[in-house]
Amino acid sequence: MATCPIGFHDRLRRAWSDSGSLLCVGLDPVRSRLPPPFSDSPSGLREFCCAIVDATADLVCAFKPQAAHFAAEGAEEQLAEVIAHIHQSWPGKPVILDAKRGDIGSTAALYAKEAFERYGADAVTVNPYLGEESVRPFLEYPDRGVAVLCRTSNPGSGWLQKAPAADPAYLRVAAAAKDWNRSGNVLLVAAATYPEELAKIRAAVGAMPLLTPGIGAQGGDLQQTLIAGLDAAGQGLVINASRSVLYPEAEGKELGGTGEAYGAAGQEFAAHSRAAARRLRDEINRLIPAPSSLGLS
Amino acid sequence: MATCPIGFHDRLRRAWSDSGSLLCVGLDPVRSRLPPPFSDSPSGLREFCCAIVDATADLVCAFKPQAAHFAAEGAEEQLAEVIAHIHQSWPGKPVILDAKRGDIGSTAALYAKEAFERYGADAVTVNPYLGEESVRPFLEYPDRGVAVLCRTSNPGSGWLQKAPAADPAYLRVAAAAKDWNRSGNVLLVAAATYPEELAKIRAAVGAMPLLTPGIGAQGGDLQQTLIAGLDAAGQGLVINASRSVLYPEAEGKELGGTGEAYGAAGQEFAAHSRAAARRLRDEINRLIPAPSSLGLS
Repeated sequence: MATCPIGFHDRLRRAWSDSGSLLCVGLDPVRSRLPPPFSDSPSGLREFCCAIVDATADLVCAFKPQAAHFAAEGAEEQLAEVIAHIHQSWPGKPVILDAKRGDIGSTAALYAKEAFERYGADAVTVNPYLGEESVRPFLEYPDRGVAVLCRTSNPGSGWLQKAPAADPAYLRVAAAAKDWNRSGNVLLVAAATYPEELAKIRAAVGAMPLLTPGIGAQGGDLQQTLIAGLDAAGQGLVINASRSVLYPEAEGKELGGTGEAYGAAGQEFAAHSRAAARRLRDEINRLIPAPSSLGLS
Repeated sequence: MATCPIGFHDRLRRAWSDSGSLLCVGLDPVRSRLPPPFSDSPSGLREFCCAIVDATADLVCAFKPQAAHFAAEGAEEQLAEVIAHIHQSWPGKPVILDAKRGDIGSTAALYAKEAFERYGADAVTVNPYLGEESVRPFLEYPDRGVAVLCRTSNPGSGWLQKAPAADPAYLRVAAAAKDWNRSGNVLLVAAATYPEELAKIRAAVGAMPLLTPGIGAQGGDLQQTLIAGLDAAGQGLVINASRSVLYPEAEGKELGGTGEAYGAAGQEFAAHSRAAARRLRDEINRLIPAPSSLGLS
């Protein structure tokens, strides 16, 4: 091609710097948890997500819409509209489509087409169980990110991902990801719930960005996560929070004074989400050690 | 619940017996390979698949539509219509949705809802990399099948699936699948391209049905597959063929005399597909050893 597209890692680094945030908000709209009037609106998933996006965009480095939440009710069009809204209103804010696709050859190429061409996602999550043939078609979009599942947040995953102890699958995935990263566009999904393993992944992959779920509702410890997962520049992590930002009912008492735009329409939920995102962003930034103390610089 | 739904294994056994066939036709509609007029029709994916279904239904035990082929062009509605057509026109013929979903908890439950409620699939393929939490929500539909990826057909998969040699992941998945099979609704995906491993899977899981890709375009040997994979009753395999039946241009010379219904409308493609499916079904049935010689009875 005539021009060399900017790699996904570079776009992500720019987003980290521009936002001053490692926080990513996961867009997991659950119909039964939506506030009115979204709960009853046919396009409520889109409307809710766009309101959350607009309320939190300046606080985050990325957004991560989750495909099943739209697919379960046949709302693919709303997913596409949410992504288009982010691109239009918040240019430069990467959209990581959480779809965890995994198939081979021409079928994997169609999943890549779905994520990158149909939805216009900047990155997509991919499952490595079928090996390199399931990742390669995604890599053929050099300007898009491919976030390969490595060490996931749930306890039942160790059975496959941590075996055998001497050469666990998750570290083999990490090593393979370095090979796959020729275009600077591979990430690994490495959960906050296993900080020791997160540290081993960081040691294995150098500065490769890690997409890190498990903070918040799943109980991962933020300080341990940062110590284990930051890169030498004090970045390197896309720390995802979904439910704790989208549905912060229990923790949304103190709004922090920025909810004016929403309060008038009775949409306090967005101010609550903004407050939750801001608390989490601030807590992350407060806990980030100075680069010199990371032991990696 | 008041009535006990018939388990998926029982429905599959009935389909094997009723059809006298272990063949499953995979519905992988590739826009650029569709014959006219389907190639130019907005609903061409559905029309092509329904024509293939009607041309081959009496020759097969099941159909396996592949999700990415519809998702890449935003044709989810056509996928739903194909599945509805099979249920309406060919009741009792199981539909295995090939989506290879893999996520945990409430997200996995939404993927199960997508497959079983939105699309009405009888079974769905699932990726085990995230462990039991990613399979359990599907198991909560006791009358639906859950086909867990075990040993896939592609060479690049051995790296994860066959490690470590002494206790390979694919055999750990097979052992787990026996635990997950309380409702008689778990299958394993075990490819024809690795007959030695297929035999080990069969030995590990007894009569559990295996969904077996890799015949045809991918080069799996049919006779070795049958020797390795049949159960003690001479059944137990859902042998999938997609491209070799859908696009049999190179092998479709001899039609076998049953294409009358399609020739009149210029739709010889369906007769070619029917001929390809019949050849494969007949070849499978010719190669099935008598039950007493299987060494498993």
